[in-house]
Amino acid sequence: MTGVDLLVIGIGELATLRTGPIPRVGSAASELGRVQNAALAVRNGVFASVGPERLVRRSVHLRKGGTEVDAGGGVVVPGFVDAHTHVLYAGDRANELEEKIRGATYLEIAAAGGGLYRTVRLTRRATKPQLLRETVPRLRRMLEAGTTTAEVKSGYALTHAGEIRLLESIPLLAERAGLDLVPTYLGAHAVPPERATTPDRYVDEVVERTIPEVARRGLAQFVDVFCEPGFFTPSQSERILRAAMAAHLGTKIHADEFVYSGGAALAAHLATHSAEHLLTAPADDRAKLARAGVTAVLLPVTPFASMSPLQSPGREMVDAGVPVALGSDVSPNSPVESMPIVMAHAVYSARLTPAEALTAATVNAAHAVGAADRAGTIAAGRSADFVLFDLPSADRIAHRIGSLPVAIYRRGNRVSPTK
Amino acid sequence: MTGVDLLVIGIGELATLRTGPIPRVGSAASELGRVQNAALAVRNGVFASVGPERLVRRSVHLRKGGTEVDAGGGVVVPGFVDAHTHVLYAGDRANELEEKIRGATYLEIAAAGGGLYRTVRLTRRATKPQLLRETVPRLRRMLEAGTTTAEVKSGYALTHAGEIRLLESIPLLAERAGLDLVPTYLGAHAVPPERATTPDRYVDEVVERTIPEVARRGLAQFVDVFCEPGFFTPSQSERILRAAMAAHLGTKIHADEFVYSGGAALAAHLATHSAEHLLTAPADDRAKLARAGVTAVLLPVTPFASMSPLQSPGREMVDAGVPVALGSDVSPNSPVESMPIVMAHAVYSARLTPAEALTAATVNAAHAVGAADRAGTIAAGRSADFVLFDLPSADRIAHRIGSLPVAIYRRGNRVSPTK
Repeated sequence: MTGVDLLVIGIGELATLRTGPIPRVGSAASELGRVQNAALAVRNGVFASVGPERLVRRSVHLRKGGTEVDAGGGVVVPGFVDAHTHVLYAGDRANELEEKIRGATYLEIAAAGGGLYRTVRLTRRATKPQLLRETVPRLRRMLEAGTTTAEVKSGYALTHAGEIRLLESIPLLAERAGLDLVPTYLGAHAVPPERATTPDRYVDEVVERTIPEVARRGLAQFVDVFCEPGFFTPSQSERILRAAMAAHLGTKIHADEFVYSGGAALAAHLATHSAEHLLTAPADDRAKLARAGVTAVLLPVTPFASMSPLQSPGREMVDAGVPVALGSDVSPNSPVESMPIVMAHAVYSARLTPAEALTAATVNAAHAVGAADRAGTIAAGRSADFVLFDLPSADRIAHRIGSLPVAIYRRGNRVSPTK
Repeated sequence: MTGVDLLVIGIGELATLRTGPIPRVGSAASELGRVQNAALAVRNGVFASVGPERLVRRSVHLRKGGTEVDAGGGVVVPGFVDAHTHVLYAGDRANELEEKIRGATYLEIAAAGGGLYRTVRLTRRATKPQLLRETVPRLRRMLEAGTTTAEVKSGYALTHAGEIRLLESIPLLAERAGLDLVPTYLGAHAVPPERATTPDRYVDEVVERTIPEVARRGLAQFVDVFCEPGFFTPSQSERILRAAMAAHLGTKIHADEFVYSGGAALAAHLATHSAEHLLTAPADDRAKLARAGVTAVLLPVTPFASMSPLQSPGREMVDAGVPVALGSDVSPNSPVESMPIVMAHAVYSARLTPAEALTAATVNAAHAVGAADRAGTIAAGRSADFVLFDLPSADRIAHRIGSLPVAIYRRGNRVSPTK
């Protein structure tokens, strides 16, 4: 009998997401590792026992001062993993919404010096305390919607020192907001305005100076690049990604979001860890991603928030055999912080099944951010990050539009609402 | 100095929505009746004083046992009014989601005996306690997202006695859930299966028997009809709406949702109180609605939840001069209960500005359900229904996708979360 600090009983359905070592949406999602009439026990922040309630009860006892919680027949799933965010920035761009309503596109707004470039200006000039003050509440709202692990990209400084400063602040953000954060260096988010006529000089800096420092100091797990006309070409992108690989950093690519430019094919060619957005990637390139084992990180709220007619290719990727993960893409352009809302868009817009959406928001997203050893599944020995919903089954999280958790636990502690 | 029970100070922005007697989105929405650095005071469940904090403070004092709340610089808006719901039903249709993902349309699912007809079967056979038990939690979740007044349609019984039973249960629902509910008789939601070959016989029953009883017993404020090929023809719809008018009931029409059949034109011709959905209504018919003063009740989540390529004509209606109101259309087909989510869809899909979306979800929706005398605006003498958000301005409610209230008050009492 193991002594435990937390015992959650009365779980109508526990979705462990222990669905095999290779996360492949479509093949593995239907089962979700479901356990009915389940319980879980936590010791020192780690799952100690998980399974049918009568078995868990037989294997543990509550330590003195421990807590027993009745889930009331609700659903427990792993804490969500948000595989793609631009949450670290200063200022906002609510003012651009009316331009979007009148039909301006993301690329048009950016070309006019707004959009991303506006956020770059505001982020460059923000003090570190200001950056933290603005970003922590966003992360807290993500957490309160059930996200316990999130990727965080740099990318709104676009200078060596500025990008390093952003990456340095990510551990502080994690500590203050109370989530696990996976840092990604996205110096190649856009060509900095002062390098508009000499973009290769900026690529030189990224490749020769920043990536080596990021790797040496362990400031990021991944390097990402925005491969799109007007941003970085496939050959510039390849140069950056190869430098990242040489530095033993993981690789991601913003590919084929607005216009088809071969980003997904490049991802497959290089066998990057993941490729993201992929709205315009054709069937041939989906097949290449599948063969190369690249995870597709889909961001189904982004075309909605951008008022784009495109939709995330959820069904298409699953049918092509590509592992699919989900992210919010939270950014000044996409003000969504809730993974349950992202999951609903994955269903109603990208046509994943609810079970596929849940898989994509947990175990697959954990793989996509290199955190599958600690996040995305519920199993003895894993960090006790889980979310309780008052729903009749785990499939209903994405079926209902905007499901709200009843309770979120991180490392076995209940996350207290900030309000 | 009036003695008050509740004083809310520190409101960064109060949007009173006192934007004139005729709510017209577009003309009136930009201002929202904004007051900066505001306060409000409540006495006996009614706003006693509303305005700049220093003026409110000067005009009231807190009664013994009264409560002072600091809004912390947040935003206060009227409790939302959800102008169109099918929230009263038994069972659910989560099982149909995978059919929709594979491309089945609402009309195809209904034609195969699923969809609405499945809910009719389950609702007919449900006991009244079961109906209440299933519906109250939905209404509570609506309330917890900020909705304090909602229209509720009958329509899942399709028999005289069954529809009467549904309408009779609405006051009980209101009492148990703690919202103000406006009942609408939608016996003409679909032709009942047992009348498939004799639809006019059902129209006879609606017109000759049920509408008179509904009117005599005060069971509904409105009569609604689903005018769509396969449901009710424009001439059947006209017959029903004229009967409603003769019985001094308000009139609504589900018009031009899937296929253009002239429902909006009929609404304009009859000058119904409102016309709803309107996804396929052409510009000519929008102009007719404007001239007739018919309010367009738009349901922007519905095409999303139906996986339809159509979008609610928000911008088009406003530009045509039609007053626009919003509803969730919560139903087994459209599992959304949050008006902030509806408002975000109104912006990102239907292209209303955030201020227009807020107007459409408050004062205009109150007009659409005949409740403008008591809901939708914040003013002395009105029921003290209001919502507090931790946002820098009222426009941000719809800008952020899935804004969550910090607190909801109904009749001056804070709504306590059920969890």
